[in-house]
Amino acid sequence: MVMSEKSITAAILVIGDEILSGRTKDKNIGYIAEYLTGLGIDLCEVRVVRDIEEEIVAAVNALRTRYTYLFTTGGIGPTHDDITADSIARALGVGIDYDERALAMMRERYAPGELNEARMRMARIPFGAELIANPISKAPGFMVENVITMAGVPSIMQAMLDDVATRLETGVKVIAETIDAKGLPEGKYAGALAEIDKAHPEVSIGSYPSFTGEGFRNQIVVRGRSRAAIDAAMDDIRRVLARITGDGAPA
Amino acid sequence: MVMSEKSITAAILVIGDEILSGRTKDKNIGYIAEYLTGLGIDLCEVRVVRDIEEEIVAAVNALRTRYTYLFTTGGIGPTHDDITADSIARALGVGIDYDERALAMMRERYAPGELNEARMRMARIPFGAELIANPISKAPGFMVENVITMAGVPSIMQAMLDDVATRLETGVKVIAETIDAKGLPEGKYAGALAEIDKAHPEVSIGSYPSFTGEGFRNQIVVRGRSRAAIDAAMDDIRRVLARITGDGAPA
Repeated sequence: MVMSEKSITAAILVIGDEILSGRTKDKNIGYIAEYLTGLGIDLCEVRVVRDIEEEIVAAVNALRTRYTYLFTTGGIGPTHDDITADSIARALGVGIDYDERALAMMRERYAPGELNEARMRMARIPFGAELIANPISKAPGFMVENVITMAGVPSIMQAMLDDVATRLETGVKVIAETIDAKGLPEGKYAGALAEIDKAHPEVSIGSYPSFTGEGFRNQIVVRGRSRAAIDAAMDDIRRVLARITGDGAPA
Repeated sequence: MVMSEKSITAAILVIGDEILSGRTKDKNIGYIAEYLTGLGIDLCEVRVVRDIEEEIVAAVNALRTRYTYLFTTGGIGPTHDDITADSIARALGVGIDYDERALAMMRERYAPGELNEARMRMARIPFGAELIANPISKAPGFMVENVITMAGVPSIMQAMLDDVATRLETGVKVIAETIDAKGLPEGKYAGALAEIDKAHPEVSIGSYPSFTGEGFRNQIVVRGRSRAAIDAAMDDIRRVLARITGDGAPA
């Protein structure tokens, strides 16, 4: 991996009617998000679109031109609704055909008589692509220009992400520190937190409520790339929280 | 609810840095997707964007003009990073101010001394909006034109969805039937499935592999609004699967 001083950004495009119908619950977005954060790559946008070529092409072009990397998941299997590879070739304006390297990988899995037309579809790869290994079912993903195309099945996607990660330019890792505001309601500290956020432009501060049924449990998260800046903001936040609870205000 | 003969479509816009950093795993997309399918509303697109006003405004305008409804989640709390209401007002070109109805709801929860400036922010509602009840923490969601703005906390979002659903125009429900292809690999039936898909234009047919570690378990899903058309396609698919397994091909 090449560590860069400049900001490295990314988007995810999830391709699949089954996610939009609610039949399948996506597990890839959260996984990739956490993975990229660990690499110092900022995930900036996610889209989910239908299995319609025009929709995929439009989303690929909107996202690949805007961010350092675009990761796609889904639609690279052997069935008629698997149209991702062709859509990406069209979006990039490159050709697509059966790829000898991909066919070689698939011959490891399928006996000659088993490699039928439908399975051969999985070896259709846009011109100029590097392949991404699939240790589980062999049919590879690929990276062409800055677009990284992976399977939708989570275990395969995760293996492909491990394979492609070593080729990515990565950034300075974001440090995220959490202060548990416990039972203290957001509304009690929101004003002070806004002032702290303004006073510390090097960090971003978020407040995230979750509701357990018994009440809210709020967490304040300070994110940034400078340890000193984060520590300074954290000190200010802790001071404010102590002042509020010390005032005898109900927690 | 008003049942419509025409197709009713929707998009979801998830607003929140915490989803993009992977810190919080979204639970709303899948829930809303399934809920809308149950109402006969076709979810066509999802986007996740950062807590940046320009990004929110651009996504709101791209989606609200394209689909019957746009549902947003997140960013309507009391802290400085909660900028959804103002962003939506800006996207729609309408004003925004403290809303007397929203304030009345919040006075049910907060004693006069507790309703500070930060909490008052949650009563800022775009002009012309209908409110959406929040039985858990009172601060309401809202619907303005075709944009439905809800909380990000799943339990609150779900309650808001129940409240707003009664006001939505709904469509003819999609019927989805699943045929379990069991251990039969996709590549064995993909060619025949493509032909069946072409022969039955009234339905859409998808094949969804999942990998358990022991092998693939594929499911074929037939979706459509006509029971007769679905049954005809299902008959053809079952015939093909029986032929493949009956041929003595390995399952």
